[in-house]
This record gives sequence, structure tokens and C-alpha cells, in this order.
Amino acid sequence: MGYKLVSRKEKPDNTVVKVGNVIVGGDCLTVIAGPCAVEDREQYIQVAGYLKKLGVQMLRGGAFKPRTSPYAFQGLAKEGLDILAEAGRVTGLPIVTEVMDTRDVEAVAGYADVIQIGSRNMQNFILLKEAGRTGKPVMLKRGLSATIEEWLMAAEYIMAEGNSDIIMCERGIRTFETHTRNTLDISAIPAVKHLSHLPVIVDPSHAAGRWGMVAPLAKASVAAGADGLLIEVHPCPNEALCDGGQSLTPGNFAQLLGELVPVAEAVGRKCKCEAKHLVKKSII
Amino acid sequence: MGYKLVSRKEKPDNTVVKVGNVIVGGDCLTVIAGPCAVEDREQYIQVAGYLKKLGVQMLRGGAFKPRTSPYAFQGLAKEGLDILAEAGRVTGLPIVTEVMDTRDVEAVAGYADVIQIGSRNMQNFILLKEAGRTGKPVMLKRGLSATIEEWLMAAEYIMAEGNSDIIMCERGIRTFETHTRNTLDISAIPAVKHLSHLPVIVDPSHAAGRWGMVAPLAKASVAAGADGLLIEVHPCPNEALCDGGQSLTPGNFAQLLGELVPVAEAVGRKCKCEAKHLVKKSII
Amino acid sequence: MGYKLVSRKEKPDNTVVKVGNVIVGGDCLTVIAGPCAVEDREQYIQVAGYLKKLGVQMLRGGAFKPRTSPYAFQGLAKEGLDILAEAGRVTGLPIVTEVMDTRDVEAVAGYADVIQIGSRNMQNFILLKEAGRTGKPVMLKRGLSATIEEWLMAAEYIMAEGNSDIIMCERGIRTFETHTRNTLDISAIPAVKHLSHLPVIVDPSHAAGRWGMVAPLAKASVAAGADGLLIEVHPCPNEALCDGGQSLTPGNFAQLLGELVPVAEAVGRKCKCEAKHLVKKSII
Amino acid sequence: MGYKLVSRKEKPDNTVVKVGNVIVGGDCLTVIAGPCAVEDREQYIQVAGYLKKLGVQMLRGGAFKPRTSPYAFQGLAKEGLDILAEAGRVTGLPIVTEVMDTRDVEAVAGYADVIQIGSRNMQNFILLKEAGRTGKPVMLKRGLSATIEEWLMAAEYIMAEGNSDIIMCERGIRTFETHTRNTLDISAIPAVKHLSHLPVIVDPSHAAGRWGMVAPLAKASVAAGADGLLIEVHPCPNEALCDGGQSLTPGNFAQLLGELVPVAEAVGRKCKCEAKHLVKKSII
Repeated sequence: MGYKLVSRKEKPDNTVVKVGNVIVGGDCLTVIAGPCAVEDREQYIQVAGYLKKLGVQMLRGGAFKPRTSPYAFQGLAKEGLDILAEAGRVTGLPIVTEVMDTRDVEAVAGYADVIQIGSRNMQNFILLKEAGRTGKPVMLKRGLSATIEEWLMAAEYIMAEGNSDIIMCERGIRTFETHTRNTLDISAIPAVKHLSHLPVIVDPSHAAGRWGMVAPLAKASVAAGADGLLIEVHPCPNEALCDGGQSLTPGNFAQLLGELVPVAEAVGRKCKCEAKHLVKKSII
Repeated sequence: MGYKLVSRKEKPDNTVVKVGNVIVGGDCLTVIAGPCAVEDREQYIQVAGYLKKLGVQMLRGGAFKPRTSPYAFQGLAKEGLDILAEAGRVTGLPIVTEVMDTRDVEAVAGYADVIQIGSRNMQNFILLKEAGRTGKPVMLKRGLSATIEEWLMAAEYIMAEGNSDIIMCERGIRTFETHTRNTLDISAIPAVKHLSHLPVIVDPSHAAGRWGMVAPLAKASVAAGADGLLIEVHPCPNEALCDGGQSLTPGNFAQLLGELVPVAEAVGRKCKCEAKHLVKKSII
Repeated sequence: MGYKLVSRKEKPDNTVVKVGNVIVGGDCLTVIAGPCAVEDREQYIQVAGYLKKLGVQMLRGGAFKPRTSPYAFQGLAKEGLDILAEAGRVTGLPIVTEVMDTRDVEAVAGYADVIQIGSRNMQNFILLKEAGRTGKPVMLKRGLSATIEEWLMAAEYIMAEGNSDIIMCERGIRTFETHTRNTLDISAIPAVKHLSHLPVIVDPSHAAGRWGMVAPLAKASVAAGADGLLIEVHPCPNEALCDGGQSLTPGNFAQLLGELVPVAEAVGRKCKCEAKHLVKKSII
Repeated sequence: MGYKLVSRKEKPDNTVVKVGNVIVGGDCLTVIAGPCAVEDREQYIQVAGYLKKLGVQMLRGGAFKPRTSPYAFQGLAKEGLDILAEAGRVTGLPIVTEVMDTRDVEAVAGYADVIQIGSRNMQNFILLKEAGRTGKPVMLKRGLSATIEEWLMAAEYIMAEGNSDIIMCERGIRTFETHTRNTLDISAIPAVKHLSHLPVIVDPSHAAGRWGMVAPLAKASVAAGADGLLIEVHPCPNEALCDGGQSLTPGNFAQLLGELVPVAEAVGRKCKCEAKHLVKKSII
């Protein structure tokens, strides 16, 4: 019993996911950025404005944070959702945020433009179904040790609810290598594009777990055919409550955007981000 | 921010989990058995009676089944819980069953004697908290690619809710080896016993994914110090709706119980199962 | 092109490897012990005598050591072989030692009773052929990330040279788990016994990388059907030039031998080691 | 005891390896191509001439092939070396070929311009030393499950012999994912460039094990900062005696070279291959 609806055999042409004015899976590279967690209203609104100026197409930020330790910062919950919504209104950018509890799906769908299913919940099948039923676009992160087939099967759970607005997000898998937090499975990009019609984006920040590697991995992902990137940017990574070590500063992120443009063009992608010229003037 | 409450440093003596008259983590080996999924009332009641006669101390069976494919049998849900409850009443044995949705925790806790958190939900932190709050004993299966530390951290989520009745269940991890479904991490038994005061049991059925390996892995687990075993037994594995390939027939299971007695005794464990003599007469 | 000669289909009955008076793969458990590396003549002869008294059937010790770093102790080479040979003469026990270079095979075969092919050389196919050609029994350690099929294929290289005296040695595989040095793949024991007629022994010392885990893993291995054990014992682990952290002291080893007897008997194995009573009197 | 000589701390500027007129680790991307194994004189000379016209800078081809099965084609040995040497003379291109046996190192060094140490021999420490002593450039493939640190340690063995002409070659690691033959660890490129001064190239053919993935992985590697590529090209992949499924046809390879040019330029690399214009005319 394999996947059917998400298979390219079933639908040979690419699925293009529309989120407001933003398109994922088309000619343009889609860049989604923001801090790992929503920590503070003022800080989030400010960084959102900056990202908007750089040409970022969607904002990310976690209100509910899945943390290995019960004693780590768990997110601002409802307050975080309010901040995200405000940032969305102020910038006009769509918002991507994670939902972890079936009981929160309806509420999160009321705030978010894209519902994120995190790695640890990739096989939380009830959550997949509920997210599918909202009709909202769903970003489905690959599980830490999910095979590509299991990942596509998880997408099938969503699509079987009548929702084909699914964005697959590769974020690194668990291997024996300890130098990186996870091992970015770059091959997953052509593999999913071959097996399925769904768009694929990459989260190089969680894959590497080291900010110094985000730029080369982002470029590699685009060169391999990724439809977009999900990148952690924090105004002050050293003070971040979550995953600071893998977050880019706004300055480093602006530089990366500038460097991405020729790579995207080299593989026939447009890059709507205005980063190319913005990077030359200092914004922050 | 590591684990605290589940650490052996915090509590040097072993935690003994009491489930009715059954004890997990004491001198006796605890054997839990049953089919993977509850499929049919009559069949389940019958096999439960048989397992009771063999000396099995708890019954297992899934009413809610996490399945890779949305098109696979998903369990009987509420009807399955009713059958489990009936089997519990008829045999007098405690029932272990899985919960997958936070919205079902209260209902499942009303039926189950032990709430099972499955591998795919080991880092479904909300579910861990809700299960902890019920006050019922929780069996926490190790995630497919969870480190021992992450597994203990997941237990910490439960214990931080005031619930220390936690049974850790090793069920194999994901590796490159494809001969077995998963790789039973036998070292996890002494590791968890060393790091934590919580009892550890082993599910050799899911680890191997091949019924022919269940017996050697079960014996190895007991020899390595496991406090119990969780074994799939199905009256007719070839017709099982779920995981038939790894289920023992009642006859093979009875034989295994007989073989386990001397192994348990060799490492200083008692084996309350009457299997030693029962296995000699034909029951089914 | 799979394995043929090593397959149980080709030869249904167990292969029993004779090394002098010692038998591997028969009714008795074969215990092989010694320090990781031969470091010092006097020390090695002394520990060898002690191990002989405990009933150990073969001695191990490395003269050529494969070390991750070029700056780590690389073994005593020819001098180490001389010491091993002397220990063999003094105790009357067969000697197992590793060969790493095709140019050394003949020389090592002149000293050793069993030629060891280490994990890092499991797919050093030329070395496999040369070892096979000596006609000496070969102990083939599983590669760090070798599948069971690849391991059997490596054995096929030896057997294709006309040498069927092969002892398979499981020593842990590489996984994401970092608590142990490697993950002992306990399932490999029944798997190899099922697929092949060759005997299988286990090296719990290298698998765990922690001496405190050697005893439970050794018992588990015997319970799972292993034909023997390869255990590191060092008179003073803290001063060992190689792998001290995973070596048992002679006292801990004697205790383990005593504990192994009932486990071996529980699975129908005899244990020739006199450890059962020896452990009661103090030898060292 | 970590690596020293290969560390970037020891030598902050990039090591540039010169092989005849070819430079690895400089401004230009180095493309090495050829069939997996040398199978036939005429065929190899012909494909070599074609690759030369496309602008390929070095030829690859195996005379000694490490094969999982003893019954698979093992290479033409001495005859293969002769063919390689002839192809080198005819085209003027340097030759890269693997050595597997310490006894063959001198002979292979007499033919090859770059000595390749294959994945299975990455920790064949004696072979590393011997290859180092030849003074010839050494291409060191990463082991199937070697950590980046172990890989650098293996390079340290070579450099400790006074030979710093080392080319690191990432070729995929072993993970749980089975869709690809191995998982290309794209992060290894920036990691090695950060930790060491040695150049890094990528073998996307062995990583993917599927020819359809070679192009996206090659582009990704260049975008991530690789100094070169090692690509399998076979005039007739379906008839290849080794690894046909991952070999590009000459036509597909020419197309890839054309597509690589803008990617290389996008990350500031020159591409000496004339492929950009050659791809427009039909050569074969």
C-alpha cells in the first residue's frame, strides 16, 4: 500500500502551492525566514520588517516549540500567535508556524497562512489528518529518521483529506556523523521531485546546526533544484532562547541572499528577493 | 538542561511500577503479550484467555494503530477499547494500549491499566504531558531514532507531571541494516538501568520484524537485565491485519515462555509464568 | 551474485572450527580473552597464565594495531608476535592475532593459531584472500557499517580460497547512538546462524566501549545463541595503551565467567571454563 | 590525539595539489571522469579521447576493483594499468586509479598520476602510509561510515609520511535511507574546507548510485564549494561490468558539463572545461 495521490505518476505536472501572493513550486525561489521561536513582540516585528525589506516572501516563527527537555523554553503559545499575526499584518507577508497538538489545529489555522508539521510529528498521523482538513497549505518537515517513502506517505495522509497544498521540507536526517547536528540529505530534493509532484524546500539551519554552514548548504540546495529555503535569522543569535547557534544575523542573511541570486539563476530560477542590490547598502 | 527526576542520581533505588497485582521492575520478569491490533472481539477474548493460562501478566492490543500508510488498517478505535476492557474483566489481567491523540487520553485512561506511548510519538511532548497527568502507569516506547538521552528526556516530561509510574520499552532503532526491521539496541537495557531508576522492558517483535528471531532476542533481553518483555502473539499470524510477520503463534509463544524460565533464573529473576509446566501439555 | 559456499542452503549442518584442542561452534561456549594490544612481555605472559587458570580457551592480543590516529600506539609488531608465541607455548592455549598487511600474512600465520581480520579490513578483499590461502582458521570481524550480507560475502572470499575454518565475530555497528562506542547488533547472531553454517562469536568489549556493559552484553550474546565470546581483559585497564576503558580487570572477568555458566546452561550450552568454582577462590 | 598536519590551524591557506598541468584546489573546478572500471582497451581509449575533447582534466578508471562479491568482475589488474597509461599518453591527461594492496603500491605509482585510496580502504592504515611514501598525489575517498574526523585522521597518516598532495573525496555515507545507494554528505564539503587546508572533491555517482541524480548532486557540490568532481561516464552504461546504473552516457555528461559552468561561476569558480560551447555541437 504505497502513496498514490502525491505520486508524480498520478499527476505528472508540478503542484504549485499558492499562499496569498506567494507561490511555492514555480519559477521563483521562495525564501522563508525568521527566528526559530517568537520570543518578544517588539523584536519579532522589527526583524519581520527587516526581512520584508530584503525581499523575503514568508515569515517563520514558532509559538509552540517542541523541545527535547521539559525545562527548555516551550514557546509563547497564544501570545506568540498574536505576535505572528501582527507581524503578518504589518509586513503583508504570509506566516508559517508549527502546530503540535490536534486540539490547537483550528486555532493555529486561524492565525497561520501555512501550518507547519515539525519533524518530530511527521508520523503523528492524527495531526496530519487534522492539518489536512483545515484546507490551509501545510509545510511537512521530514522526520529525523524518516525514509523518503515514509515522508511521502505522511504527505499522502494530508492529501487524502482533500488538501494538495503541501510543501515538503527537507531538514537533515540522523546519521552517525556528529560534526553537524543532522546530515542534510541533499539527494532528497531530486528524489522527491522525481517521485512526487509536490514542491520541496530545504531548511539548512536545522540540518547543519551551525550558522557557518547555512550559506553553502543553502546554495547547494538551490543548485540541486529546491523550490525554496527556510532559514533561521535572529537579530542576536547569542541571546536566542532556541537554536541560536544555527541562526544567521540579519547581516549574514542579507549577504547570503545576495549570493543566492546567481546560483538560482544558474539553474534557471528567478529570485524575487531584492537582496541583490539591498545587500550593498547597510540596512540594520 | 538534562533529565533530573528520572535520573538514578536523584533516586538510587529502582522504581517498581505496580499495575493492579502485577509488578514491573521487581524480582520477577513481567511478560506482556497479545496481538498487535485488536481485530475481532471473539478472537481477542479467546487469545487473552489462552495467554492468561500461560501465565502472561498483562495483555497488549492496539485500538488506535499508527500506520505508515493512510490506506492501512487504522484500528477499531472505541470498539477496540471496549473489547480490551472486556478481555481485562474476563481474564483479570491488566490491559496495555496505545494512545495517539491528546483528545483521546482521558478516554483511553478510562479503559487502560497502562497507557502506551508509541515510538512515533516519543517526542510528541504534549501527549507525554497529558499521559503523565492521568496518573496511570505509562509505557514509553523508544523512538525509532531516539538517543538514550532523548528517551530519558521524554520520560522526564511524564515524570515532571508528577507521575513516576513509567515503564521504558526498547523496541529497536533504525540503522543501515535491512535484514531486520529495526536493530534491537540490547545495550540500551544496561544503559537505562545505569542512568535511571526506571524499569526497562523489551519488545523483540517490533525490533526484529521476523517471528523467527523473537525467541533469541527475548532470551538475550532477559539475560541483559530487562525487567520484562512485550511480545506479539496472534492466533493466526498469516491473517493478521497488522504485523503478522513478526507475531508468534500461541504454540511458539508457549514454547518460548518455557525456554525463558531457565534464562531468567540464570540472571537471578523469578518467572511467575506457569509456562514451564504448561508448555508440556497442549492447551490450544 | 550472492554468497554460496558460506550459505546454510549449501551446507545445512553447522561448521565446527577446530583450533588445536579447542572447538568453536560445538556444544561448548568458547571464551577468548586477553588485552587489546600486546604491550609488555612479562605482563602478557602473566595475564595469559591467569586466563589459562580461569579456563579461557584461547588468548587474544594485537601485535599490529589499527589506530585512528597515526600518533597512537601502533603495536609491537614482530616483537609482539614473539611474545604471543611464547604465551602460547607457556599456556598451551591457541593464539588469535590480527593481520593488517598482505605482506605480513605469511609471517603472522607462522605465529598465530587463528588469524584475525579486523573490522576496518573486512572489505580488504586481497587480505581476505591471502588469509584464506594460509589454511589457518580465520576470525572475521564485522565491519563497522557492514550489512550482514556484506559480512557473509567477505566470508565467501575466504571460503572461495578453499578455507572453511571461519569464525564470524560481531563487534557492534555504527549508529546514531553515542552512549555506546558502537551498537551491538545482537540480532546478527540468530541472523548469521540462520543464513550460514559458520560459527558466530561476539566481542562485547568493542561493541560497548565501556567495561561496565561487558557483562550484560556477554550474557545476552550467549542467550541469543553465540558460539563464543571475545573479551578484553587487562591487568591494569587504566594504564592500557589501547582501549583501557572497555577492558575488564582480571577480577571482574573471573566474576563474569562465573555468571556466564548458568546462562550458557540455560540455552543448552556447556561451559568448559572452570570459572564456576575458580571465581570463589582468589587467584590474583 | 587529533590531526595536526592536515589542520587549517596548522596551515591557514589552501593546499593546491598540482598534477601535471592540472590544479586541484585553485580557482578552477577540476573535473575527473571515466568509466568505473577499465574493461576494454579500445573502448577506454575512445572514451578518454572524447572526455579530453569535452575539457575533462583527469581520467579515472579502475584496474583493481574492490567488489562485495568474490564472483563479480575484479578488474583487469596489470593489463588495466597498461591501458590507463596508454590513454594518458594519447590524451595527455593525468590518470587516477585505485590501489588496494600494499604490494601493488609501487607498481601503481609507476603508472598513475594520482593514487586513489578507496572507501573500503580508508582505514587501511598501512596502505595509507605506503601511498604517502610514493610522493604521488593521493585521492582519499571517505569511508562508507567514516566520520569527518576519522577521514581527516586518515589523511594525517598520508601527510605524516611527508606527502601533502592529498585530495579528499566525499562519496556518500551509509545511512538508513535506501532510495539512494549512499547519502551524499554535502555538509562534508564546507566542514573539511573549514577544518583543513586540503582540497575536497565529490563523487556524485557513487553517492547516488542512480545516474538520474548525478547532475543535481554535481551542481549542489559545486555550489557548496567543492574543488572538483569525480564522475562516472561509460559509453554504454547498460553493458558496464561495474556500476552501470550510476554511469552517465557521454551525451548526458556533456550536457551536465554545460550546465555546471554557470553554477561554478555563480560561486566564483572558473570552469576550464570547454563544455560550454562543446555541448552545443554533437561530438559523439
